[in-house]
Amino acid sequence: MDLVPRKSRKRTIFVVVFVTGLVCIGIGFIIGWFSRGSTIHNSDTKADRNYTSKQRLAGTDNVKELVQHIAQQWRDHGLDKVEITPYDILMSYPNTTKQNRVEIVVSGGSPVFTAALVEKPLDADGNQSDIIPPYNSFAPAGVAEGDLVYVNYGRIEDFMYLNNLSIDITNKIVIARYGKIFRGDKVLNAQRFNASGVILYSDPADVNTNGTSDTYPNSWWMPETGLQRGTVGGDGDLLTPFYPAREYAYRLAMDKISIAVKIPSQPIGYGDALHFLSDLSGDVVPNDWKGGLNITYKIGPGFVNKTRKAKLTVNNYLKVVTVENVIGIITGEVEPDRYVLLGNHHDAWVFGAIDPLSGTATLTEITRVMGKMKQSGIRPKRTIVFCTWGGEEVGLIGSTEWVEEYMKVLYERAVAYLNVDWAVESINNLAAGASPLLQDPLYQAAKIVPNPDSSSPYKTLYDIWNQKNPGDGTGEPSVYYSLGSGSDMATFYQRAGVPSIDMYYTFDHKQWNILYYPLYHSAYETFHMFTSFIDPSFNYMLTMGRLWGVLAWKLADETLLSYDVRRYPKAISDFIATLKTQFGPLWQANNVNIGALESASANFTLAAKNFYDRLQSVDKKNPLAVRMANDKMMQLERVFIDPEGLPGRPIYKHVMFAPSKFDSYKDNSFPGIVDTMFEIQNNNASSWDLLKQQVYVATYTIQSAANSLDPIGL
Amino acid sequence: MDLVPRKSRKRTIFVVVFVTGLVCIGIGFIIGWFSRGSTIHNSDTKADRNYTSKQRLAGTDNVKELVQHIAQQWRDHGLDKVEITPYDILMSYPNTTKQNRVEIVVSGGSPVFTAALVEKPLDADGNQSDIIPPYNSFAPAGVAEGDLVYVNYGRIEDFMYLNNLSIDITNKIVIARYGKIFRGDKVLNAQRFNASGVILYSDPADVNTNGTSDTYPNSWWMPETGLQRGTVGGDGDLLTPFYPAREYAYRLAMDKISIAVKIPSQPIGYGDALHFLSDLSGDVVPNDWKGGLNITYKIGPGFVNKTRKAKLTVNNYLKVVTVENVIGIITGEVEPDRYVLLGNHHDAWVFGAIDPLSGTATLTEITRVMGKMKQSGIRPKRTIVFCTWGGEEVGLIGSTEWVEEYMKVLYERAVAYLNVDWAVESINNLAAGASPLLQDPLYQAAKIVPNPDSSSPYKTLYDIWNQKNPGDGTGEPSVYYSLGSGSDMATFYQRAGVPSIDMYYTFDHKQWNILYYPLYHSAYETFHMFTSFIDPSFNYMLTMGRLWGVLAWKLADETLLSYDVRRYPKAISDFIATLKTQFGPLWQANNVNIGALESASANFTLAAKNFYDRLQSVDKKNPLAVRMANDKMMQLERVFIDPEGLPGRPIYKHVMFAPSKFDSYKDNSFPGIVDTMFEIQNNNASSWDLLKQQVYVATYTIQSAANSLDPIGL
Repeated sequence: MDLVPRKSRKRTIFVVVFVTGLVCIGIGFIIGWFSRGSTIHNSDTKADRNYTSKQRLAGTDNVKELVQHIAQQWRDHGLDKVEITPYDILMSYPNTTKQNRVEIVVSGGSPVFTAALVEKPLDADGNQSDIIPPYNSFAPAGVAEGDLVYVNYGRIEDFMYLNNLSIDITNKIVIARYGKIFRGDKVLNAQRFNASGVILYSDPADVNTNGTSDTYPNSWWMPETGLQRGTVGGDGDLLTPFYPAREYAYRLAMDKISIAVKIPSQPIGYGDALHFLSDLSGDVVPNDWKGGLNITYKIGPGFVNKTRKAKLTVNNYLKVVTVENVIGIITGEVEPDRYVLLGNHHDAWVFGAIDPLSGTATLTEITRVMGKMKQSGIRPKRTIVFCTWGGEEVGLIGSTEWVEEYMKVLYERAVAYLNVDWAVESINNLAAGASPLLQDPLYQAAKIVPNPDSSSPYKTLYDIWNQKNPGDGTGEPSVYYSLGSGSDMATFYQRAGVPSIDMYYTFDHKQWNILYYPLYHSAYETFHMFTSFIDPSFNYMLTMGRLWGVLAWKLADETLLSYDVRRYPKAISDFIATLKTQFGPLWQANNVNIGALESASANFTLAAKNFYDRLQSVDKKNPLAVRMANDKMMQLERVFIDPEGLPGRPIYKHVMFAPSKFDSYKDNSFPGIVDTMFEIQNNNASSWDLLKQQVYVATYTIQSAANSLDPIGL
Repeated sequence: MDLVPRKSRKRTIFVVVFVTGLVCIGIGFIIGWFSRGSTIHNSDTKADRNYTSKQRLAGTDNVKELVQHIAQQWRDHGLDKVEITPYDILMSYPNTTKQNRVEIVVSGGSPVFTAALVEKPLDADGNQSDIIPPYNSFAPAGVAEGDLVYVNYGRIEDFMYLNNLSIDITNKIVIARYGKIFRGDKVLNAQRFNASGVILYSDPADVNTNGTSDTYPNSWWMPETGLQRGTVGGDGDLLTPFYPAREYAYRLAMDKISIAVKIPSQPIGYGDALHFLSDLSGDVVPNDWKGGLNITYKIGPGFVNKTRKAKLTVNNYLKVVTVENVIGIITGEVEPDRYVLLGNHHDAWVFGAIDPLSGTATLTEITRVMGKMKQSGIRPKRTIVFCTWGGEEVGLIGSTEWVEEYMKVLYERAVAYLNVDWAVESINNLAAGASPLLQDPLYQAAKIVPNPDSSSPYKTLYDIWNQKNPGDGTGEPSVYYSLGSGSDMATFYQRAGVPSIDMYYTFDHKQWNILYYPLYHSAYETFHMFTSFIDPSFNYMLTMGRLWGVLAWKLADETLLSYDVRRYPKAISDFIATLKTQFGPLWQANNVNIGALESASANFTLAAKNFYDRLQSVDKKNPLAVRMANDKMMQLERVFIDPEGLPGRPIYKHVMFAPSKFDSYKDNSFPGIVDTMFEIQNNNASSWDLLKQQVYVATYTIQSAANSLDPIGL
């Protein structure tokens, strides 16, 4: 067993203590941190201070209180250093005195119907008076009135469908259902087609899939009064692009900030949406546009009663507030200047029992266990950094500003960033997106962690994962490579080139074809929900804690990093094959030659094989040889960072993987190529010249990756 | 003596052999490589194949022949690997059938006077039939005709002087003398003031300072028939910005390339310039505009005879050609993945006896000595890379494309880049520009190298350097910190953040207030000139070879790098003090607060002191501790690289030092701040907002430098 290297008997024991620590001691503690009751909590945690008891919106006093609480817990756990890192950033809030309104009006006149302005409290869980009003952060204030058009999920293909029917969206309000793509891209798509506003709603087909009347608080299904909040903005503080929002920052004037979304948008529940959709005129929608409401879905434009219009009034405002991260450090014994980072955010839309506090509690449990290990005299070889981020929900702001502040040292020193946003949204199987470099360490860690279902014949997490979520013919569990921008790994991966992972326990996506758990970003995401319908025993949170902790410890303590560099060229050559299948004839017809790209890929494959072969004979007792090998593995991901960034998107600098330009949740491999092809095929501005230039950049980068694995490399 | 660490007696001996090698064996060899005669040459070097015997313009067969010759010599010297790296790049040539013309014409009619189209051969040195016609590379083809205006050196302040006299340059041809600033910036300045063309000439005040009639071939002074060629373009291949011009490159269409200079320009000799200047009308020039011609210098506009106009016809053309570098490697014994690079270019405007071949021959001598050391069984700890670049004269093209190709590994691995363009232009004293990090290694190397003047009471190069060229009250020889873009260190320093140096032996700049030796870039820069008037004994070339070689060997072989990190914050705090003196009241009046900048600088000073103190107790027998310390010293320079680049100049990424935006030869510290202040003070587009933003970026970067020296850094 060389999965966790064992330098000495002493170390072995502590590795076992760590792995089993979560089993033997962990459960009580993790429940304690998570609990709002007074019977099951850690004695260090006051019963009236717990993660999910209040709303935790970024920039509010509630979240400041949580930050202090977490920092104190981490200090109590004996980390070497715990710091709160504040950034003053531009936040977007709903106006509580002039509330947002979504209405049906008699043209230019009084409202016929007004959607609810709040999410109705349905139980006593959390401080129900404290529910954040529904809104989309960074949706600009504005009023729109006009005929309504139903645009399905608001994807480019949905708008193209309407376009092909000659339905003009200009100056109309569109209503789009949540799902499939990032909500901000729905609004941007509507904007591209000149809509004046966007109403977003959660269709029961997506959030109450079975159509049960037994919704929350009796199940995890969304009731008609529930809705999804969420940002429609981009990543990082708008006032300080590229640089940290420290007190000395130069901040852009408000008329100089760059907000892509220019039209108002607002979320409503499906109980309200029914009133808008049921009265639409026009053609009946195609089958795959039909939702779960008991109506005939029509496209519009406009209501049956032509004197009625949809009206959207958004009064969101921008304000500079402080968001805070908590950063905890255990200093490495041998290589303090190499970091393994674990990250999660702590801000929530409302109570955040799944998103993110299931992850936050898990992270705190890991600090406890590793604190204990440290107190017992055992330190990892490399430095472990615990991060809990503020302002994630409103644009990954806490993590982005912190990565910007420490960009230079992270670029030189970070071995891996391990993100868990929510730990558990359901208990069917593990989902993980990762850099190809982290695939093997993840598998090896999962082989150590027990299967949370002790009644199963599969003994390890790896086995049950492979059973439930197998890769396509690989014989290994499914890992998706390309990390979108949906959580805090984005800035680490896209700008600092730190090998990153994002993982969580999820539902069976073959059973329910939805992005997230139904109550996502609603006020009903409560402790009651979590303990009633998600993970009552906290057994899956425990499993995530084990996996996350074991993986971090492994990467921080193994002599030679367990990165298998051969995964990277394999991924690339697979992606090239896919591109050829998809675009081969079109490229041939347009003189796009990818011969050099294929050669570079072959060179990279060979260089990785040679590196791997040499690695097998590296003398693990030779610290310089070990460091030289590890440096090259760590830096391989950096090679994919191009300072010039992707076309028109300088903030995205990873040449191989980036969020899709047309859906930030989606991940593109070869983003410069794939996005450009998308634009070419949709008759947008891009050109074959840009495509050829992007093939060149990809070729150059992959060849550089090959060079970087060579002992000399020149 | 710990200047060159001595691990063992064996190593000590070889260090001595290396240092003395150049003394005992070197002279004959170095003369041999340099000589075109048959009596004094290395037996490996055929008498008919030598560096200066033919013109060596980039892209010509002559330079290809030289490249093959150098590569063969380096192979013969036993380097581990010698490669020729070709790049297909866009080159600019003079049209030999439709020659460029600089004329005085009767308005719209026939020429009254035509400047010489060639530099007249004055001796039998070199193949005189092979002289490249005078031109400015990348001056666009075009015809301009109009009144002539004399603009002195063509600096911004010269144009502002004319502006203040209400002399409008629009659509006029200007005549500017060479000197003070980069010629390309003279043309750009003229263009900013709407001139239609630029005639450049070398005034005798600058190239025949003493006004002697005994010019070349009887002295190093420029004759009236001589002139300075040179590029007016920027850096790197225009067809492939940011990426290497490899065979698979996507090349910009010709109408998409970015050439800043849009108006024609052409150099002439002062014999010809006399005809233009002597007939100018208008006011007499101020005293500091007066040159050395025996005329009354007037400004114009226009000639005394108003029917006469100046006419400029430029027929230069662009062509894709191959430039080649020679890259030679001696693999390091302990850390092959750390590089010390020595670089020089081999392309010349004509025969290039000083620029660059005095450097090229010196570099080849170093390959010989280090090849001998290697054959004797001694290798440096780190890898040594010898580079001789093609296409330097036309925009640092060979080095830029190579650095672009290997950017990723250079960024991770390069310890230092040591540039010598020409080795010796005169024998008065040493001149060196360097990163603050390289100042101490350079001093230490200079203390090993003997004073080339053995009759002097100063025994070492360091001593005589300190005597001839002392720093201002420092007690140490003068080293300027900020490296402009005049030679091949630019891309290493400005984009890859590799600590760099540029050095040469020069004349007494207090005696002659000129940029370069008088025959710079003329056809008279011959072997005859070098051996008659510059360094007949080759003793100063030998000294440069010793200095360069000793410095390289030291950096490649010392256990702990001799970088004194305290130099960097010292330089920065000195520059901040200068800025405060210069701009303090103005900044106060405009609410520019540099308190945070000063704090960051103080933090950096403290971090550097602490690092330095810790360094003294690093166990040199602990290879990991040594590598960790060295990594931080090497990477300190990288911290100053900002992927976003300077405002409007993404190619310049070093926040602390860059070529001035208004004179590429000049070096700015805090370039983002200084250039913006220049623009503010000259009422150009820049704003106080940009200035504040640049203060912020500088503050952030300096604080990052402080963090980077911390063992943890978070």
